[in-house]
Amino acid sequence: MLDHGGDIQGFVDEFGYEPLDFSANVSPLGLPDEVVKAIEGCIAGLAAYPDPLCRKLTCALGAHHGIDPTHILCGNGCSDLIYRIARVLEPKRALLAAPTFSEYATALSQVNCDIKRHYLAPGTGYALDESFIAAITDDIDVVFICQPNNPCGLVTPRDVVERALARCNEIDAWLIVDECFIEFIDDPSATTMESHIADSEKLIILKAFTKLYGMAGLRLGYLLGTDAALIDRLRNAEQPWAVSTVAQTAGIAALSSTGYVEKLRELVQAERAFMKEKLAQLGIRAQGEANYLFFELNDGGELVSHLRHHGILIRDCSNFPGLGVGSYRVAILSHEKNEKLIAALADALQEK
Amino acid sequence: MLDHGGDIQGFVDEFGYEPLDFSANVSPLGLPDEVVKAIEGCIAGLAAYPDPLCRKLTCALGAHHGIDPTHILCGNGCSDLIYRIARVLEPKRALLAAPTFSEYATALSQVNCDIKRHYLAPGTGYALDESFIAAITDDIDVVFICQPNNPCGLVTPRDVVERALARCNEIDAWLIVDECFIEFIDDPSATTMESHIADSEKLIILKAFTKLYGMAGLRLGYLLGTDAALIDRLRNAEQPWAVSTVAQTAGIAALSSTGYVEKLRELVQAERAFMKEKLAQLGIRAQGEANYLFFELNDGGELVSHLRHHGILIRDCSNFPGLGVGSYRVAILSHEKNEKLIAALADALQEK
Repeated sequence: MLDHGGDIQGFVDEFGYEPLDFSANVSPLGLPDEVVKAIEGCIAGLAAYPDPLCRKLTCALGAHHGIDPTHILCGNGCSDLIYRIARVLEPKRALLAAPTFSEYATALSQVNCDIKRHYLAPGTGYALDESFIAAITDDIDVVFICQPNNPCGLVTPRDVVERALARCNEIDAWLIVDECFIEFIDDPSATTMESHIADSEKLIILKAFTKLYGMAGLRLGYLLGTDAALIDRLRNAEQPWAVSTVAQTAGIAALSSTGYVEKLRELVQAERAFMKEKLAQLGIRAQGEANYLFFELNDGGELVSHLRHHGILIRDCSNFPGLGVGSYRVAILSHEKNEKLIAALADALQEK
Repeated sequence: MLDHGGDIQGFVDEFGYEPLDFSANVSPLGLPDEVVKAIEGCIAGLAAYPDPLCRKLTCALGAHHGIDPTHILCGNGCSDLIYRIARVLEPKRALLAAPTFSEYATALSQVNCDIKRHYLAPGTGYALDESFIAAITDDIDVVFICQPNNPCGLVTPRDVVERALARCNEIDAWLIVDECFIEFIDDPSATTMESHIADSEKLIILKAFTKLYGMAGLRLGYLLGTDAALIDRLRNAEQPWAVSTVAQTAGIAALSSTGYVEKLRELVQAERAFMKEKLAQLGIRAQGEANYLFFELNDGGELVSHLRHHGILIRDCSNFPGLGVGSYRVAILSHEKNEKLIAALADALQEK
């Protein structure tokens, strides 16, 4: 439960004040104004149950993606959908990259799925490359690809994902592409697998509002898939009212917000370059193409606790299979906050 | 998905205006003022992930019930917890009353549980009585009791529930008592099984904020249980962030609200008597001890569609095992709305 980032409450309980949280990767711009207004506007109607079918939101998403709403399913955050996928597909053997987002393995383990890990090479910056395709052996039922990969932040070239899809089709396996962070990279449209939804029966794409619109506290994610029967089974794999009215309302408003995503992408792009440069000046080689950076230090893992005592949370990545002690992930936040992180890092390295 | 009450969106899509919704049973008082203020106050902080352990809310609930917080688990509405219970207990054979709330069977069917139904007698008003105890045979792993029972609204005497618990202990079966509507009855403290949590390893009590505080659109429920290991397994049976920050914040505020529950109970009590009397004048014998009433008509099930065309939703109960065509449930709302329902019912009966 607490082996993820973002445990602000744990920090507050220990130190009695709010930390600067670089351990969870959410939009530093906060909620779009349209979303704030929409939430305020829906409070009076919260006595009613949420629409179990999320009809208005699903239609808005259909229009947004140019995809028929029957190919879309909303969930209580993307994690809800990951757990439903595991329950409905009940795979016997899954292929995951190592490292990658840990909830795939946690969800799969609930249905006693055997997990095969393809270890990514440190020398490539833990890139998911062609070697992954060969790992999709005949005994695999389901493959997860996180795009860009979390926590190391690299984008997998689309042709590699397409070859993974072709290979999955060949052996009748499911491919789940998690695009929850894709909107933070410089050119999402050159990377997304959305265009394959129409013709790939066994492709599921995960998407989130959580990170992009700064609404992690609200819980809202969705998936795109071709197979309408599967979408129905996934819908029925959870209680009818999984997505709250507040989340549905906020999602619709987020899609109608203007300029937010562009402004966010610009900020993240500039700050990413700034942080990489500043970290390089400290002798830290940081990598990442989304709204977070990954780096490794030969420090015995002391950085997390050092920064914690200076009011800063970062993500200790040593519990990811495929990574070791001294591997870290930090979010890209506002310029002011990023400067504070850099200063604290400089301080930490000097003290050693 | 849509075989429950409360499908306001479906009505709006068909008729283009908001219906009077008597098909879902939520507080007619709307959100307590304290909750509205708390939600407004938390919007600015929604970029952060929710506390996966719901620490503040769980502590507040512990103080409220006089129960150690380790015996409490919060969920994304009570339905979330019902599905987790089914997944974690994985019972082979469950005993349910018929009729009762349908989500128990839906959740249990997901783990291929065989469901034994104990049909309640129409002559008793579908009361859950001593005959239920005899139905708890040795092959039963889990028993659900809805207190008061939904949709027929009768309270099961506590000594019957206690005898069910004793019988469950005898055969090592789990007893799940769903007290989501218990705060609406006249004397909840004489009925609740809370005092047994401390000494009954295999008792789980379900509780909801949803109906009581008019926050069905927010999703928040919780359970009480003795077995800390089970609570942990139930916690891990779902994604870490199932309960949104908005729901956690609203729950804490609801517990600190003053006078709301008393005022609500008074209103429901008065309106329940008013509606029963008015319905009796129309020749309808309605029953129910909570915030909803149940009745049966020999009308071929036409009432739902008649009222629907007059802008009123009620719950058609004919899809509950144990009930037939012409059985209905209506919520108890504000006096003004209740009068509208009575007038529309009088109109419907006259037209026949």
